[in-house]
Amino acid sequence: MGRSKGDRRERELVNKLYENEFGVMRTPSSGSSTKRELPDCLAGNGEYIYAFEAKSSSGPPIYIEEQKIEGLEYFAEKFDCAPVVAVRFDRESWYFLHPDWLYRTESGNYRVKKEFANEHGVQFDELGNENMILAQETDE
Amino acid sequence: MGRSKGDRRERELVNKLYENEFGVMRTPSSGSSTKRELPDCLAGNGEYIYAFEAKSSSGPPIYIEEQKIEGLEYFAEKFDCAPVVAVRFDRESWYFLHPDWLYRTESGNYRVKKEFANEHGVQFDELGNENMILAQETDE
Repeated sequence: MGRSKGDRRERELVNKLYENEFGVMRTPSSGSSTKRELPDCLAGNGEYIYAFEAKSSSGPPIYIEEQKIEGLEYFAEKFDCAPVVAVRFDRESWYFLHPDWLYRTESGNYRVKKEFANEHGVQFDELGNENMILAQETDE
Repeated sequence: MGRSKGDRRERELVNKLYENEFGVMRTPSSGSSTKRELPDCLAGNGEYIYAFEAKSSSGPPIYIEEQKIEGLEYFAEKFDCAPVVAVRFDRESWYFLHPDWLYRTESGNYRVKKEFANEHGVQFDELGNENMILAQETDE
């Protein structure tokens, strides 16, 4: 749960996006002065734009607050793009999921188990792919 | 030329965008670790996306380095949006200009005089307007 490890993971994702010809705007991790939750980063490759909320875990399920996802979806609407939850478990790749796919807890928060991510998550190579399910989800 | 005043002006623009229902991602003013020049902010309102390079001046012409504009245009391509130079002279409103409209100095940098901005710049109210010339510039 350490901020530094989460930050390192997030930078890892941003660098991978850069290497794959995405333009990336990253939200500073230090508290911003805006009223609204911002996504962790916004990335575009000329064809697709993604708003990412990125979370990492050593193994236990990842929980994401409802208001974070609301912020993500608000932004995705403004940029007419896919809202994407990016999860990274230790010794696994990044997996990408649409918020609609995720389990909601009784309090309304979102939960991602490692097994669920492995089974249903989209992998990095599929980002920017025309058949990418995340793009299809939001195309209409 | 003080960073703090430029920062305040930029925040002024960001807040105005927020108030007008734009989602805004702002680049932290502290040096980022990315190799590429980032725009100052990226804003979307569900219809249009703009990548802004924002500059303010107490009165003298504003100069923008060639590589800043190259970074702006690179990003605009990745987000399929308009690259916009936003200028703010003291006691004036913000004016928005496409880089192609601007005077190039012999060294390749860009220059915006106050009079030019007043005459050719697009005003805030025209952002997000369907007839906005900046959107038309990049639609095809």
